[in-house]
Amino acid sequence: MSAKLIKGTEIREQILEEITAEVAKIKEDHGKVPGLVTILVGENPASISYVTLKIKTAHRVGFNEIQDTQPIDISEDDLLALIDKYNKDDSINGILVQLPLPKHIDDKKILNAIDPDKDVDGFHPVNVGRLMIGGDEVKFPPCTPAGIQEMIVRAGVETSGAEVVVVGRSNIVGKPIANMMVQKGKGANSTVTIVHTRTKDLAAHCKRADILIVAAGVPELVKPEWIKPGACVIDVGVNRVGEKISEKTGKKVAVLRGDVDFEKAKEIAGYITPVPGGVGPMTITMLMLNTLKSLKFKLGIE
Amino acid sequence: MSAKLIKGTEIREQILEEITAEVAKIKEDHGKVPGLVTILVGENPASISYVTLKIKTAHRVGFNEIQDTQPIDISEDDLLALIDKYNKDDSINGILVQLPLPKHIDDKKILNAIDPDKDVDGFHPVNVGRLMIGGDEVKFPPCTPAGIQEMIVRAGVETSGAEVVVVGRSNIVGKPIANMMVQKGKGANSTVTIVHTRTKDLAAHCKRADILIVAAGVPELVKPEWIKPGACVIDVGVNRVGEKISEKTGKKVAVLRGDVDFEKAKEIAGYITPVPGGVGPMTITMLMLNTLKSLKFKLGIE
Repeated sequence: MSAKLIKGTEIREQILEEITAEVAKIKEDHGKVPGLVTILVGENPASISYVTLKIKTAHRVGFNEIQDTQPIDISEDDLLALIDKYNKDDSINGILVQLPLPKHIDDKKILNAIDPDKDVDGFHPVNVGRLMIGGDEVKFPPCTPAGIQEMIVRAGVETSGAEVVVVGRSNIVGKPIANMMVQKGKGANSTVTIVHTRTKDLAAHCKRADILIVAAGVPELVKPEWIKPGACVIDVGVNRVGEKISEKTGKKVAVLRGDVDFEKAKEIAGYITPVPGGVGPMTITMLMLNTLKSLKFKLGIE
Repeated sequence: MSAKLIKGTEIREQILEEITAEVAKIKEDHGKVPGLVTILVGENPASISYVTLKIKTAHRVGFNEIQDTQPIDISEDDLLALIDKYNKDDSINGILVQLPLPKHIDDKKILNAIDPDKDVDGFHPVNVGRLMIGGDEVKFPPCTPAGIQEMIVRAGVETSGAEVVVVGRSNIVGKPIANMMVQKGKGANSTVTIVHTRTKDLAAHCKRADILIVAAGVPELVKPEWIKPGACVIDVGVNRVGEKISEKTGKKVAVLRGDVDFEKAKEIAGYITPVPGGVGPMTITMLMLNTLKSLKFKLGIE
């Protein structure tokens, strides 16, 4: 094992402590705490578990958190009216609508109805545009890419002038992280290449990466020999490749693999994120940071 | 001379003819023509000449064109009210505000006040976001990058799987064209790298480009030996490097150079754009296409 592990679980704890301290300070100075509402339609078990974790984390850092559960047969108009209510509610700084929504509701219409100033997920076209424009324009970077950038910075990896290769061109990870790393400023200023399914020589691109960010959703796509010795490898993939009996609980749990062959890659890379416990824990953490930022924008202290 | 010249002046004529025919057809079928207003504040000679060219082109393709000139001391509020008037005017499909604006007016505030559905320049954050999201989401791609993509497609250059290297990370050209070329779909699907002032080995990146798009604003930055034999070279630079007496008119005119050493590069490249007469003429052409699209969106025929 030569690579330094970048543990999302540890960085999460640092950041949540920083947020908790800042929330307490703002409460003292301004008498306000960030308000976060999570709207859940129906009872999809995966959604419930994800929403529960968001709410629990929001509670931990001292936010005012609301879980608003709606019946599966809520009409699109009623859901829009609900969003409008929270858009107008001064105590709410962040609005989340948990996906997937039932088929009779148009996802895009719902997400675009959220006030961009409360869109802490950062997926509204206005916030996507601000991200690409860069600089002071950026309000809420999307949470997973923001978490990736934060991990790279906190690991002490130099980004300025670094060759960054992003594997995957999704709207959730690949395209936003590429746009973030190419901007001027701290934690960025990189030379960025996006590779994807149509790329002719994936291996050659990976081999020249100082920072390799893999978000392809293909288990162990990146081979150890594709990794430049000493490179920083960020593995965003969370692929279920089977099941096993948990030693802790005796229950069946999923066997997870990243997009990188971790066991061999860690002997070559300089820094690497594990799966699980790498990028995963950063997403909700950055969601909390965006919600805090939203209140700070409103108070004029960011 | 081995490279095939990609002449913006010729492609402009083709596209303007296509637009003219389509405008006539829509007029016949729907009784409407695209309406374009250009707002000019003050009397900056370069702005006047640029606005005049836009108006002349709009007139040529059969648009309803309005040039609205305002005094240099117009207040920000009055300018916002003017934009609001055109936002609400059903006969207007595209609103342009010619930059630069006088210093007492906040550019960003003005541009963001334009209805995104009439933002035919494509610089409103909503349209920038839609561009990055890609697919059906895209309404008005910004004009210069859209022109570049159109030239590549019309020259018959294969983009799928091609190595595209973009030199420069501006919001006007570099970042949007990079985002466009990486998307799925026609004229795109490329592997894209953005290089810039912080890039360590500019030459090495240029050398592996099948399509090299240079928008750096540095005269002859790209050396002939950096060009891969047979590559498609798009030179966006328009640099004034001196003055000369025009043979035609006997008057002093600027000597223009691109970002690429054209004379030598054309012996190596497979395709190349000249400066002037390359990318330049495409910008206003694509502005006309966006204005036509705006009417078509409204009529539900795009």
